[in-house]
Amino acid sequence: MILGIELKAYLEERRVFVDGELARLLPHRGAYPPDVHEALHYAVFSGGKRLRAILVLATAEAVADVLPDGAVEAACAIECVHNYSLVHDDLPCMDADELRRGRPTVWKKYGEAVAVLTGDALLTVAFQILALGATREIELSDRLLLCSQELATASGTFGMIGGQAADVANEGVDIDASVLEYIHALKTGALIRCACRMGAILARADDARLVAATRYGEYLGMAFQIADDLLNVTGDEAKLGKSVGSDEKRGKNTYPKIHGVEKSREMAKLRADSAVAEAKRLPRPEILVELAKFVVERDH
Amino acid sequence: MILGIELKAYLEERRVFVDGELARLLPHRGAYPPDVHEALHYAVFSGGKRLRAILVLATAEAVADVLPDGAVEAACAIECVHNYSLVHDDLPCMDADELRRGRPTVWKKYGEAVAVLTGDALLTVAFQILALGATREIELSDRLLLCSQELATASGTFGMIGGQAADVANEGVDIDASVLEYIHALKTGALIRCACRMGAILARADDARLVAATRYGEYLGMAFQIADDLLNVTGDEAKLGKSVGSDEKRGKNTYPKIHGVEKSREMAKLRADSAVAEAKRLPRPEILVELAKFVVERDH
Repeated sequence: MILGIELKAYLEERRVFVDGELARLLPHRGAYPPDVHEALHYAVFSGGKRLRAILVLATAEAVADVLPDGAVEAACAIECVHNYSLVHDDLPCMDADELRRGRPTVWKKYGEAVAVLTGDALLTVAFQILALGATREIELSDRLLLCSQELATASGTFGMIGGQAADVANEGVDIDASVLEYIHALKTGALIRCACRMGAILARADDARLVAATRYGEYLGMAFQIADDLLNVTGDEAKLGKSVGSDEKRGKNTYPKIHGVEKSREMAKLRADSAVAEAKRLPRPEILVELAKFVVERDH
Repeated sequence: MILGIELKAYLEERRVFVDGELARLLPHRGAYPPDVHEALHYAVFSGGKRLRAILVLATAEAVADVLPDGAVEAACAIECVHNYSLVHDDLPCMDADELRRGRPTVWKKYGEAVAVLTGDALLTVAFQILALGATREIELSDRLLLCSQELATASGTFGMIGGQAADVANEGVDIDASVLEYIHALKTGALIRCACRMGAILARADDARLVAATRYGEYLGMAFQIADDLLNVTGDEAKLGKSVGSDEKRGKNTYPKIHGVEKSREMAKLRADSAVAEAKRLPRPEILVELAKFVVERDH
Protein backbone atom coordinates (compact mmCIF):
# COMPACT_ATOMS: atom_id res chain seq x y z
CA MET A 1 0.00 0.00 0.00
CA ILE A 2 1.36 3.38 -1.03
CA LEU A 3 1.31 5.86 1.83
CA GLY A 4 -0.62 9.12 1.61
CA ILE A 5 2.64 11.03 1.86
CA GLU A 6 3.68 9.67 -1.53
CA LEU A 7 0.56 10.96 -3.24
CA LYS A 8 2.36 12.42 -6.25
CA ALA A 9 3.97 9.07 -7.03
CA TYR A 10 0.62 7.35 -6.52
CA LEU A 11 -1.14 9.79 -8.86
CA GLU A 12 1.53 9.35 -11.51
CA GLU A 13 1.45 5.56 -11.27
CA ARG A 14 -2.34 5.57 -11.51
CA ARG A 15 -2.37 8.04 -14.39
CA VAL A 16 -0.09 5.76 -16.39
CA PHE A 17 -2.22 2.74 -15.47
CA VAL A 18 -5.46 4.48 -16.53
CA ASP A 19 -3.86 5.63 -19.80
CA GLY A 20 -2.87 2.05 -20.54
CA GLU A 21 -6.36 0.74 -19.82
CA LEU A 22 -7.93 3.47 -21.95
CA ALA A 23 -5.63 2.54 -24.83
CA ARG A 24 -6.75 -1.08 -24.42
CA LEU A 25 -10.48 -0.33 -24.17
CA LEU A 26 -10.93 2.44 -26.74
CA PRO A 27 -11.29 1.77 -30.48
CA HIS A 28 -7.90 1.69 -32.21
CA ARG A 29 -6.41 4.99 -33.37
CA GLY A 30 -5.96 3.64 -36.91
CA ALA A 31 -9.52 2.33 -37.27
CA TYR A 32 -11.85 3.40 -40.09
CA PRO A 33 -13.11 6.09 -40.53
CA PRO A 34 -9.78 7.79 -39.78
CA ASP A 35 -10.74 11.33 -38.70
CA VAL A 36 -13.02 10.50 -35.81
CA HIS A 37 -10.69 7.81 -34.43
CA GLU A 38 -7.63 10.04 -34.65
CA ALA A 39 -9.52 12.92 -33.06
CA LEU A 40 -10.79 10.63 -30.31
CA HIS A 41 -7.25 9.62 -29.38
CA TYR A 42 -6.07 13.22 -29.72
CA ALA A 43 -8.77 14.28 -27.25
CA VAL A 44 -8.24 11.48 -24.73
CA PHE A 45 -4.45 11.26 -24.73
CA SER A 46 -3.59 14.88 -24.14
CA GLY A 47 -1.98 14.86 -20.72
CA GLY A 48 -5.09 14.79 -18.54
CA LYS A 49 -4.61 14.06 -14.83
CA ARG A 50 -7.26 11.29 -14.87
CA LEU A 51 -8.59 12.59 -11.57
CA ARG A 52 -12.08 11.14 -12.06
CA ALA A 53 -10.77 7.72 -13.05
CA ILE A 54 -8.38 7.70 -10.10
CA LEU A 55 -11.25 8.65 -7.78
CA VAL A 56 -13.20 5.57 -8.90
CA LEU A 57 -10.23 3.32 -8.16
CA ALA A 58 -9.25 5.08 -4.92
CA THR A 59 -12.79 5.05 -3.51
CA ALA A 60 -13.19 1.36 -4.41
CA GLU A 61 -9.92 0.62 -2.61
CA ALA A 62 -10.95 2.74 0.36
CA VAL A 63 -13.90 0.35 0.80
CA ALA A 64 -12.65 -3.07 -0.41
CA ASP A 65 -9.41 -5.02 0.16
CA VAL A 66 -8.67 -5.49 -3.53
CA LEU A 67 -9.62 -3.55 -6.64
CA PRO A 68 -13.10 -4.92 -7.42
CA ASP A 69 -14.20 -6.23 -10.84
CA GLY A 70 -15.62 -3.48 -13.01
CA ALA A 71 -13.65 -0.68 -11.33
CA VAL A 72 -11.21 -0.32 -14.23
CA GLU A 73 -14.10 -0.17 -16.71
CA ALA A 74 -15.95 2.40 -14.59
CA ALA A 75 -12.75 4.46 -14.26
CA CYS A 76 -12.19 4.51 -18.03
CA ALA A 77 -15.87 5.18 -18.73
CA ILE A 78 -16.01 8.29 -16.55
CA GLU A 79 -12.79 9.56 -18.11
CA CYS A 80 -14.43 9.23 -21.55
CA VAL A 81 -17.44 11.22 -20.34
CA HIS A 82 -15.19 13.93 -18.91
CA ASN A 83 -13.22 14.18 -22.15
CA TYR A 84 -16.35 14.28 -24.32
CA SER A 85 -17.56 17.21 -22.22
CA LEU A 86 -14.29 19.08 -22.83
CA VAL A 87 -14.48 18.49 -26.60
CA HIS A 88 -18.04 19.80 -26.81
CA ASP A 89 -17.47 22.66 -24.32
CA ASP A 90 -14.61 23.95 -26.48
CA LEU A 91 -16.80 24.19 -29.63
CA PRO A 92 -17.21 27.63 -31.25
CA CYS A 93 -20.91 27.71 -30.30
CA MET A 94 -20.04 26.99 -26.64
CA ASP A 95 -16.82 28.37 -25.07
CA ALA A 96 -15.03 28.85 -28.43
CA ASP A 97 -11.72 27.76 -26.91
CA GLU A 98 -8.83 27.29 -29.31
CA LEU A 99 -6.32 25.96 -26.82
CA ARG A 100 -6.49 23.18 -24.23
CA ARG A 101 -3.58 21.71 -22.30
CA GLY A 102 -1.28 23.75 -24.52
CA ARG A 103 -2.52 22.31 -27.82
CA PRO A 104 -5.19 23.27 -30.39
CA THR A 105 -8.63 22.06 -29.31
CA VAL A 106 -10.27 19.22 -31.26
CA TRP A 107 -12.52 21.48 -33.36
CA LYS A 108 -9.57 23.77 -34.13
CA LYS A 109 -7.48 20.83 -35.35
CA TYR A 110 -10.10 18.56 -36.98
CA GLY A 111 -12.98 20.91 -37.74
CA GLU A 112 -16.33 21.33 -36.04
CA ALA A 113 -18.16 18.38 -37.59
CA VAL A 114 -15.47 15.92 -36.48
CA ALA A 115 -15.38 17.55 -33.02
CA VAL A 116 -19.13 17.09 -32.55
CA LEU A 117 -18.85 13.45 -33.68
CA THR A 118 -15.78 12.84 -31.51
CA GLY A 119 -17.57 14.11 -28.41
CA ASP A 120 -20.57 11.95 -29.29
CA ALA A 121 -18.26 8.97 -29.79
CA LEU A 122 -16.58 9.45 -26.40
CA LEU A 123 -19.92 9.67 -24.62
CA THR A 124 -21.13 6.56 -26.41
CA VAL A 125 -18.01 4.49 -25.83
CA ALA A 126 -18.22 5.28 -22.09
CA PHE A 127 -21.37 3.17 -21.83
CA GLN A 128 -19.91 0.49 -24.07
CA ILE A 129 -16.87 0.15 -21.82
CA LEU A 130 -19.02 0.10 -18.69
CA ALA A 131 -21.00 -2.80 -20.15
CA LEU A 132 -17.91 -4.90 -20.88
CA GLY A 133 -18.49 -6.88 -17.70
CA ALA A 134 -21.82 -8.11 -19.11
CA THR A 135 -20.64 -11.63 -19.78
CA ARG A 136 -18.59 -12.21 -16.64
CA GLU A 137 -20.84 -12.69 -13.65
CA ILE A 138 -24.50 -11.93 -13.15
CA GLU A 139 -24.12 -9.97 -9.90
CA LEU A 140 -21.41 -7.86 -11.49
CA SER A 141 -23.87 -7.08 -14.30
CA ASP A 142 -26.28 -5.73 -11.72
CA ARG A 143 -23.65 -3.44 -10.18
CA LEU A 144 -22.44 -2.29 -13.60
CA LEU A 145 -25.98 -1.50 -14.71
CA LEU A 146 -26.36 0.55 -11.53
CA CYS A 147 -23.10 2.34 -12.40
CA SER A 148 -24.40 2.93 -15.91
CA GLN A 149 -27.43 4.64 -14.39
CA GLU A 150 -25.27 6.64 -11.98
CA LEU A 151 -23.03 7.80 -14.83
CA ALA A 152 -25.93 8.71 -17.13
CA THR A 153 -27.72 10.58 -14.35
CA ALA A 154 -24.60 12.47 -13.30
CA SER A 155 -23.88 13.42 -16.92
CA GLY A 156 -27.44 14.32 -17.90
CA THR A 157 -29.70 17.35 -17.66
CA PHE A 158 -29.91 17.04 -13.85
CA GLY A 159 -26.12 16.74 -13.76
CA MET A 160 -23.26 17.89 -15.94
CA ILE A 161 -25.27 18.88 -19.04
CA GLY A 162 -27.75 20.77 -16.85
CA GLY A 163 -24.87 22.66 -15.25
CA GLN A 164 -23.37 23.53 -18.62
CA ALA A 165 -26.78 24.62 -19.96
CA ALA A 166 -27.36 26.84 -16.90
CA ASP A 167 -23.83 28.25 -17.24
CA VAL A 168 -24.34 29.08 -20.93
CA ALA A 169 -27.71 30.68 -20.12
CA ASN A 170 -26.16 32.83 -17.35
CA GLU A 171 -22.96 33.94 -19.10
CA GLY A 172 -22.63 37.71 -18.79
CA VAL A 173 -25.50 37.77 -16.26
CA ASP A 174 -24.79 38.65 -12.62
CA ILE A 175 -25.86 35.70 -10.49
CA ASP A 176 -25.84 35.26 -6.73
CA ALA A 177 -23.76 32.83 -4.72
CA SER A 178 -26.46 30.15 -4.48
CA VAL A 179 -26.97 29.95 -8.25
CA LEU A 180 -23.19 29.72 -8.71
CA GLU A 181 -23.02 26.89 -6.17
CA TYR A 182 -25.85 25.14 -8.00
CA ILE A 183 -24.21 25.46 -11.43
CA HIS A 184 -20.90 24.16 -10.13
CA ALA A 185 -22.52 21.33 -8.19
CA LEU A 186 -23.96 20.10 -11.49
CA LYS A 187 -21.26 21.05 -13.98
CA THR A 188 -18.23 19.68 -12.16
CA GLY A 189 -19.58 18.21 -8.92
CA ALA A 190 -21.98 15.63 -10.33
CA LEU A 191 -19.28 13.69 -12.18
CA ILE A 192 -16.80 13.75 -9.27
CA ARG A 193 -19.54 12.57 -6.90
CA CYS A 194 -20.41 9.85 -9.44
CA ALA A 195 -16.80 8.65 -9.59
CA CYS A 196 -16.82 8.07 -5.83
CA ARG A 197 -20.25 6.43 -5.88
CA MET A 198 -19.30 4.02 -8.68
CA GLY A 199 -16.15 3.04 -6.81
CA ALA A 200 -18.16 2.38 -3.65
CA ILE A 201 -20.93 0.49 -5.48
CA LEU A 202 -18.46 -1.82 -7.24
CA ALA A 203 -16.72 -2.44 -3.92
CA ARG A 204 -20.13 -3.50 -2.52
CA ALA A 205 -20.18 -0.75 0.09
CA ASP A 206 -23.03 -0.91 2.62
CA ASP A 207 -25.41 2.05 2.88
CA ALA A 208 -23.40 3.97 5.49
CA ARG A 209 -20.21 3.71 3.45
CA LEU A 210 -21.98 4.58 0.20
CA VAL A 211 -23.28 7.73 1.89
CA ALA A 212 -19.80 8.62 3.20
CA ALA A 213 -18.29 8.08 -0.28
CA THR A 214 -21.06 10.19 -1.81
CA ARG A 215 -20.53 13.08 0.62
CA TYR A 216 -16.78 12.83 0.19
CA GLY A 217 -17.33 13.25 -3.56
CA GLU A 218 -19.66 16.20 -3.06
CA TYR A 219 -17.25 18.12 -0.83
CA LEU A 220 -14.29 17.21 -3.01
CA GLY A 221 -16.12 18.40 -6.11
CA MET A 222 -16.86 21.78 -4.51
CA ALA A 223 -13.27 22.18 -3.32
CA PHE A 224 -12.03 21.20 -6.76
CA GLN A 225 -14.18 23.74 -8.58
CA ILE A 226 -13.27 26.62 -6.26
CA ALA A 227 -9.59 25.74 -6.68
CA ASP A 228 -10.11 25.63 -10.46
CA ASP A 229 -11.69 29.09 -10.45
CA LEU A 230 -8.80 30.38 -8.33
CA LEU A 231 -6.23 28.95 -10.74
CA ASN A 232 -7.90 30.89 -13.55
CA VAL A 233 -7.15 34.07 -11.57
CA THR A 234 -3.85 33.35 -9.86
CA GLY A 235 -2.41 30.39 -11.82
CA ASP A 236 0.67 30.02 -14.00
CA GLU A 237 -0.19 29.82 -17.72
CA ALA A 238 2.74 27.55 -18.55
CA LYS A 239 1.71 24.99 -15.93
CA LEU A 240 -2.01 25.21 -16.73
CA GLY A 241 -1.63 25.00 -20.51
CA LYS A 242 -4.46 27.54 -20.88
CA SER A 243 -4.92 31.29 -20.61
CA VAL A 244 -5.19 32.78 -17.15
CA GLY A 245 -7.89 35.43 -16.70
CA SER A 246 -10.13 33.98 -19.46
CA ASP A 247 -13.07 33.54 -17.07
CA GLU A 248 -13.04 37.21 -16.12
CA LYS A 249 -12.70 38.40 -19.72
CA ARG A 250 -15.69 36.27 -20.68
CA GLY A 251 -17.86 37.46 -17.80
CA LYS A 252 -17.96 33.93 -16.32
CA ASN A 253 -19.45 33.59 -12.87
CA THR A 254 -16.75 32.24 -10.60
CA TYR A 255 -16.04 31.98 -6.86
CA PRO A 256 -13.30 34.67 -6.87
CA LYS A 257 -15.63 37.00 -8.79
CA ILE A 258 -18.44 36.62 -6.26
CA HIS A 259 -16.52 36.03 -3.02
CA GLY A 260 -13.02 37.42 -3.72
CA VAL A 261 -9.76 35.44 -3.74
CA GLU A 262 -9.13 35.18 0.01
CA LYS A 263 -12.66 34.11 0.92
CA SER A 264 -12.64 31.59 -1.95
CA ARG A 265 -9.39 30.05 -0.67
CA GLU A 266 -10.95 29.66 2.75
CA MET A 267 -14.07 28.09 1.27
CA ALA A 268 -12.03 25.56 -0.71
CA LYS A 269 -10.10 24.65 2.43
CA LEU A 270 -13.30 24.15 4.46
CA ARG A 271 -14.79 21.89 1.77
CA ALA A 272 -11.59 19.84 1.63
CA ASP A 273 -11.70 19.44 5.43
CA SER A 274 -15.28 18.18 5.23
CA ALA A 275 -14.24 15.72 2.51
CA VAL A 276 -11.48 14.41 4.77
CA ALA A 277 -13.96 13.88 7.62
CA GLU A 278 -16.21 11.81 5.32
CA ALA A 279 -13.29 9.78 3.95
CA LYS A 280 -12.40 8.78 7.49
CA ARG A 281 -15.67 6.87 7.78
CA LEU A 282 -14.28 4.37 5.24
CA PRO A 283 -11.99 1.44 6.15
CA ARG A 284 -8.87 2.69 4.28
CA PRO A 285 -9.17 6.47 3.86
CA GLU A 286 -5.47 7.43 3.42
CA ILE A 287 -5.42 8.10 -0.33
CA LEU A 288 -8.77 9.89 -0.33
CA VAL A 289 -7.58 12.12 2.53
CA GLU A 290 -4.41 13.06 0.65
CA LEU A 291 -6.40 13.60 -2.56
CA ALA A 292 -8.65 16.11 -0.81
CA LYS A 293 -5.62 18.08 0.37
CA PHE A 294 -4.01 17.87 -3.07
CA VAL A 295 -7.07 19.20 -4.86
CA VAL A 296 -6.94 22.57 -3.07
CA GLU A 297 -3.14 22.86 -3.11
CA ARG A 298 -2.45 21.92 -6.74
CA ASP A 299 -0.93 24.47 -9.11
CA HIS A 300 -2.34 23.04 -12.38
CA MET B 1 -53.21 -10.20 -31.91
CA ILE B 2 -53.44 -7.53 -34.56
CA LEU B 3 -53.23 -9.01 -38.05
CA GLY B 4 -50.51 -7.99 -40.50
CA ILE B 5 -53.17 -6.58 -42.77
CA GLU B 6 -53.96 -3.96 -40.15
CA LEU B 7 -50.38 -2.77 -39.99
CA LYS B 8 -51.22 0.92 -40.20
CA ALA B 9 -53.51 0.67 -37.17
CA TYR B 10 -50.84 -1.33 -35.34
CA LEU B 11 -48.16 1.26 -36.13
CA GLU B 12 -50.40 4.10 -35.00
CA GLU B 13 -51.35 2.33 -31.76
CA ARG B 14 -47.68 1.59 -31.03
CA ARG B 15 -46.56 5.09 -31.92
CA VAL B 16 -49.00 6.53 -29.39
CA PHE B 17 -47.89 3.95 -26.81
CA VAL B 18 -44.18 4.77 -27.32
CA ASP B 19 -44.90 8.50 -27.14
CA GLY B 20 -46.64 7.96 -23.82
CA GLU B 21 -43.76 5.90 -22.42
CA LEU B 22 -41.23 8.48 -23.61
CA ALA B 23 -43.20 11.22 -21.88
CA ARG B 24 -43.13 9.12 -18.70
CA LEU B 25 -39.41 8.26 -18.85
CA LEU B 26 -37.85 11.52 -20.08
CA PRO B 27 -37.07 14.45 -17.75
CA HIS B 28 -40.05 16.80 -17.45
CA ARG B 29 -40.45 19.54 -20.06
CA GLY B 30 -40.66 22.20 -17.38
CA ALA B 31 -37.52 21.09 -15.49
CA TYR B 32 -34.58 23.42 -14.79
CA PRO B 33 -32.61 24.57 -16.74
CA PRO B 34 -35.48 25.45 -19.12
CA ASP B 35 -33.82 25.67 -22.56
CA VAL B 36 -32.33 22.21 -22.76
CA HIS B 37 -35.46 20.50 -21.39
CA GLU B 38 -37.78 22.38 -23.73
CA ALA B 39 -35.50 21.65 -26.68
CA LEU B 40 -35.30 17.99 -25.69
CA HIS B 41 -39.09 17.69 -25.78
CA TYR B 42 -39.25 19.72 -28.99
CA ALA B 43 -36.81 17.28 -30.59
CA VAL B 44 -38.43 14.08 -29.36
CA PHE B 45 -42.10 14.96 -29.77
CA SER B 46 -42.07 16.12 -33.36
CA GLY B 47 -44.17 13.52 -35.14
CA GLY B 48 -41.59 10.77 -35.56
CA LYS B 49 -42.83 7.33 -36.65
CA ARG B 50 -40.98 5.58 -33.75
CA LEU B 51 -39.92 2.85 -36.19
CA ARG B 52 -36.89 1.81 -34.13
CA ALA B 53 -38.84 1.64 -30.89
CA ILE B 54 -41.60 -0.34 -32.58
CA LEU B 55 -39.00 -2.74 -33.99
CA VAL B 56 -37.74 -3.49 -30.47
CA LEU B 57 -41.27 -4.29 -29.31
CA ALA B 58 -42.28 -6.18 -32.47
CA THR B 59 -39.13 -8.34 -32.49
CA ALA B 60 -39.56 -9.13 -28.80
CA GLU B 61 -43.15 -10.19 -29.48
CA ALA B 62 -42.10 -12.22 -32.51
CA VAL B 63 -39.97 -14.31 -30.12
CA ALA B 64 -41.85 -14.31 -26.79
CA ASP B 65 -45.53 -14.75 -25.87
CA VAL B 66 -45.76 -11.50 -23.92
CA LEU B 67 -43.87 -8.23 -24.06
CA PRO B 68 -40.78 -8.99 -21.93
CA ASP B 69 -39.51 -6.79 -19.08
CA GLY B 70 -37.11 -4.14 -20.29
CA ALA B 71 -38.54 -3.98 -23.83
CA VAL B 72 -40.30 -0.65 -23.22
CA GLU B 73 -37.11 0.85 -21.77
CA ALA B 74 -35.03 -0.46 -24.69
CA ALA B 75 -37.60 0.90 -27.16
CA CYS B 76 -37.52 4.37 -25.60
CA ALA B 77 -33.73 4.32 -25.28
CA ILE B 78 -33.14 3.63 -28.97
CA GLU B 79 -35.64 6.32 -29.90
CA CYS B 80 -33.61 8.80 -27.80
CA VAL B 81 -30.43 7.77 -29.60
CA HIS B 82 -32.12 8.16 -32.98
CA ASN B 83 -33.40 11.62 -32.08
CA TYR B 84 -30.05 12.78 -30.70
CA SER B 85 -28.47 11.81 -34.03
CA LEU B 86 -31.01 13.92 -35.91
CA VAL B 87 -30.39 16.95 -33.67
CA HIS B 88 -26.61 16.75 -34.16
CA ASP B 89 -26.83 15.87 -37.88
CA ASP B 90 -28.88 19.01 -38.50
CA LEU B 91 -26.23 21.33 -36.96
CA PRO B 92 -24.69 24.02 -39.19
CA CYS B 93 -21.31 22.27 -39.09
CA MET B 94 -22.89 18.98 -40.24
CA ASP B 95 -25.87 18.97 -42.67
CA ALA B 96 -26.91 22.58 -41.87
CA ASP B 97 -30.59 21.65 -42.12
CA GLU B 98 -33.09 24.32 -41.09
CA LEU B 99 -36.22 22.22 -41.45
CA ARG B 100 -37.17 18.80 -40.13
CA ARG B 101 -40.63 17.24 -40.17
CA GLY B 102 -41.95 20.59 -41.35
CA ARG B 103 -40.61 22.61 -38.39
CA PRO B 104 -37.41 24.57 -37.66
CA THR B 105 -34.61 22.25 -36.53
CA VAL B 106 -33.47 22.41 -32.90
CA TRP B 107 -30.41 24.62 -33.58
CA LYS B 108 -32.52 26.94 -35.72
CA LYS B 109 -35.07 27.35 -32.92
CA TYR B 110 -32.89 27.23 -29.78
CA GLY B 111 -29.41 28.09 -31.05
CA GLU B 112 -26.37 25.93 -31.65
CA ALA B 113 -25.14 25.64 -28.06
CA VAL B 114 -28.51 24.36 -26.82
CA ALA B 115 -28.74 22.00 -29.81
CA VAL B 116 -25.35 20.44 -29.03
CA LEU B 117 -26.36 20.04 -25.37
CA THR B 118 -29.79 18.67 -26.30
CA GLY B 119 -28.26 15.99 -28.51
CA ASP B 120 -25.82 15.13 -25.74
CA ALA B 121 -28.71 14.97 -23.26
CA LEU B 122 -30.72 12.61 -25.47
CA LEU B 123 -27.77 10.27 -25.94
CA THR B 124 -27.13 10.29 -22.20
CA VAL B 125 -30.73 9.74 -21.16
CA ALA B 126 -30.92 6.72 -23.47
CA PHE B 127 -28.51 4.83 -21.24
CA GLN B 128 -30.22 6.11 -18.13
CA ILE B 129 -33.57 4.76 -19.32
CA LEU B 130 -32.03 1.44 -20.33
CA ALA B 131 -30.64 1.06 -16.81
CA LEU B 132 -34.01 1.65 -15.14
CA GLY B 133 -34.46 -2.10 -14.72
CA ALA B 134 -31.38 -2.18 -12.45
CA THR B 135 -33.33 -2.73 -9.27
CA ARG B 136 -35.90 -5.20 -10.53
CA GLU B 137 -34.37 -8.61 -11.09
CA ILE B 138 -30.75 -9.68 -11.39
CA GLU B 139 -31.15 -11.66 -14.63
CA LEU B 140 -32.93 -8.73 -16.20
CA SER B 141 -29.95 -6.56 -15.22
CA ASP B 142 -27.72 -8.89 -17.18
CA ARG B 143 -29.89 -8.65 -20.30
CA LEU B 144 -30.20 -4.87 -19.96
CA LEU B 145 -26.44 -4.47 -19.60
CA LEU B 146 -26.06 -6.55 -22.76
CA CYS B 147 -28.58 -4.24 -24.48
CA SER B 148 -26.63 -1.23 -23.21
CA GLN B 149 -23.54 -2.65 -24.90
CA GLU B 150 -25.47 -3.42 -28.09
CA LEU B 151 -26.85 0.12 -28.19
CA ALA B 152 -23.49 1.77 -27.49
CA THR B 153 -21.75 -0.38 -30.11
CA ALA B 154 -24.42 0.25 -32.74
CA SER B 155 -24.27 4.00 -32.06
CA GLY B 156 -20.49 4.31 -31.85
CA THR B 157 -17.60 4.73 -34.25
CA PHE B 158 -18.08 1.22 -35.65
CA GLY B 159 -21.79 1.98 -36.03
CA MET B 160 -23.88 5.10 -36.53
CA ILE B 161 -21.20 7.70 -35.68
CA GLY B 162 -18.71 5.90 -37.93
CA GLY B 163 -21.24 5.99 -40.76
CA GLN B 164 -21.89 9.68 -40.26
CA ALA B 165 -18.15 10.43 -40.07
CA ALA B 166 -17.53 8.49 -43.31
CA ASP B 167 -20.47 10.25 -44.95
CA VAL B 168 -19.18 13.70 -43.93
CA ALA B 169 -15.70 12.79 -45.18
CA ASN B 170 -17.06 11.61 -48.55
CA GLU B 171 -19.54 14.41 -49.26
CA GLY B 172 -18.94 15.73 -52.78
CA VAL B 173 -16.60 12.80 -53.50
CA ASP B 174 -17.65 10.14 -56.03
CA ILE B 175 -17.73 6.80 -54.23
CA ASP B 176 -18.47 3.32 -55.53
CA ALA B 177 -21.39 1.09 -54.62
CA SER B 178 -19.54 -0.87 -51.95
CA VAL B 179 -18.51 2.24 -49.98
CA LEU B 180 -22.08 3.51 -50.20
CA GLU B 181 -23.38 0.18 -48.87
CA TYR B 182 -20.83 0.36 -46.06
CA ILE B 183 -21.76 3.91 -45.05
CA HIS B 184 -25.46 3.10 -45.03
CA ALA B 185 -24.95 -0.15 -43.14
CA LEU B 186 -23.36 1.88 -40.36
CA LYS B 187 -25.29 5.13 -40.50
CA THR B 188 -28.82 3.76 -40.60
CA GLY B 189 -28.42 -0.01 -40.55
CA ALA B 190 -26.57 -0.44 -37.27
CA LEU B 191 -29.35 1.10 -35.16
CA ILE B 192 -32.16 -0.80 -36.91
CA ARG B 193 -30.24 -4.05 -36.49
CA CYS B 194 -29.69 -3.13 -32.84
CA ALA B 195 -33.42 -2.57 -32.30
CA CYS B 196 -34.15 -6.12 -33.48
CA ARG B 197 -31.30 -7.61 -31.44
CA MET B 198 -32.36 -5.86 -28.23
CA GLY B 199 -35.93 -7.12 -28.72
CA ALA B 200 -34.68 -10.67 -29.23
CA ILE B 201 -32.23 -10.52 -26.30
CA LEU B 202 -34.89 -9.25 -23.88
CA ALA B 203 -37.24 -12.00 -25.11
CA ARG B 204 -34.48 -14.52 -24.24
CA ALA B 205 -34.14 -15.73 -27.84
CA ASP B 206 -31.88 -18.75 -28.36
CA ASP B 207 -28.89 -18.38 -30.70
CA ALA B 208 -30.73 -19.39 -33.88
CA ARG B 209 -33.51 -16.89 -33.25
CA LEU B 210 -31.09 -14.14 -32.27
CA VAL B 211 -29.31 -14.69 -35.60
CA ALA B 212 -32.60 -14.60 -37.52
CA ALA B 213 -33.62 -11.38 -35.73
CA THR B 214 -30.20 -9.87 -36.45
CA ARG B 215 -30.36 -10.71 -40.16
CA TYR B 216 -33.92 -9.48 -40.35
CA GLY B 217 -32.70 -6.16 -38.95
CA GLU B 218 -29.81 -5.99 -41.39
CA TYR B 219 -31.97 -6.57 -44.48
CA LEU B 220 -34.67 -4.28 -43.17
CA GLY B 221 -32.13 -1.53 -42.53
CA MET B 222 -30.81 -1.76 -46.10
CA ALA B 223 -34.32 -1.74 -47.57
CA PHE B 224 -35.19 1.22 -45.35
CA GLN B 225 -32.20 3.30 -46.43
CA ILE B 226 -32.72 2.64 -50.14
CA ALA B 227 -36.37 3.59 -49.77
CA ASP B 228 -35.32 6.74 -47.90
CA ASP B 229 -32.94 7.73 -50.70
CA LEU B 230 -35.69 7.11 -53.25
CA LEU B 231 -38.12 9.31 -51.34
CA ASN B 232 -35.60 12.16 -51.50
CA VAL B 233 -35.81 11.88 -55.29
CA THR B 234 -39.43 10.92 -55.97
CA GLY B 235 -41.25 11.80 -52.74
CA ASP B 236 -43.92 14.36 -51.92
CA GLU B 237 -42.57 17.33 -49.93
CA ALA B 238 -45.82 17.89 -48.06
CA LYS B 239 -45.89 14.29 -46.81
CA LEU B 240 -42.17 14.15 -46.03
CA GLY B 241 -41.99 17.50 -44.21
CA LYS B 242 -38.58 18.15 -45.82
CA SER B 243 -37.23 19.29 -49.18
CA VAL B 244 -37.13 16.75 -52.01
CA GLY B 245 -33.96 16.74 -54.11
CA SER B 246 -31.77 18.02 -51.23
CA ASP B 247 -29.44 14.99 -51.43
CA GLU B 248 -28.70 15.64 -55.10
CA LYS B 249 -28.14 19.37 -54.56
CA ARG B 250 -25.66 18.61 -51.80
CA GLY B 251 -23.75 16.00 -53.79
CA LYS B 252 -24.79 13.26 -51.33
CA ASN B 253 -24.00 9.70 -52.33
CA THR B 254 -27.29 7.85 -52.60
CA TYR B 255 -28.61 4.63 -54.15
CA PRO B 256 -30.53 6.41 -56.94
CA LYS B 257 -27.43 8.47 -57.76
CA ILE B 258 -25.25 5.36 -58.12
CA HIS B 259 -27.74 2.76 -59.37
CA GLY B 260 -30.60 4.81 -60.84
CA VAL B 261 -34.21 4.89 -59.60
CA GLU B 262 -35.47 1.64 -61.16
CA LYS B 263 -32.53 -0.49 -60.07
CA SER B 264 -32.73 1.02 -56.56
CA ARG B 265 -36.44 0.09 -56.30
CA GLU B 266 -35.60 -3.46 -57.25
CA MET B 267 -32.77 -3.60 -54.69
CA ALA B 268 -35.05 -2.36 -51.92
CA LYS B 269 -37.64 -4.99 -52.82
CA LEU B 270 -35.03 -7.79 -52.78
CA ARG B 271 -33.76 -6.71 -49.34
CA ALA B 272 -37.31 -6.61 -48.00
CA ASP B 273 -37.91 -10.13 -49.33
CA SER B 274 -34.79 -11.38 -47.57
CA ALA B 275 -35.97 -9.71 -44.35
CA VAL B 276 -39.30 -11.52 -44.66
CA ALA B 277 -37.52 -14.87 -45.07
CA GLU B 278 -35.55 -14.26 -41.86
CA ALA B 279 -38.63 -13.13 -39.93
CA LYS B 280 -40.29 -16.42 -40.78
CA ARG B 281 -37.71 -18.28 -38.70
CA LEU B 282 -39.28 -16.69 -35.60
CA PRO B 283 -42.35 -18.09 -33.81
CA ARG B 284 -44.72 -15.16 -34.56
CA PRO B 285 -43.39 -13.35 -37.64
CA GLU B 286 -46.60 -11.61 -38.88
CA ILE B 287 -45.89 -8.03 -37.80
CA LEU B 288 -42.23 -8.16 -38.84
CA VAL B 289 -43.25 -9.47 -42.26
CA GLU B 290 -45.73 -6.65 -42.76
CA LEU B 291 -43.19 -4.11 -41.47
CA ALA B 292 -40.66 -5.19 -44.10
CA LYS B 293 -43.25 -4.67 -46.84
CA PHE B 294 -44.30 -1.32 -45.37
CA VAL B 295 -40.74 0.01 -45.25
CA VAL B 296 -40.29 -0.17 -49.04
CA GLU B 297 -43.84 0.93 -49.89
CA ARG B 298 -44.17 3.92 -47.55
CA ASP B 299 -44.59 7.41 -48.99
CA HIS B 300 -43.11 9.38 -46.03
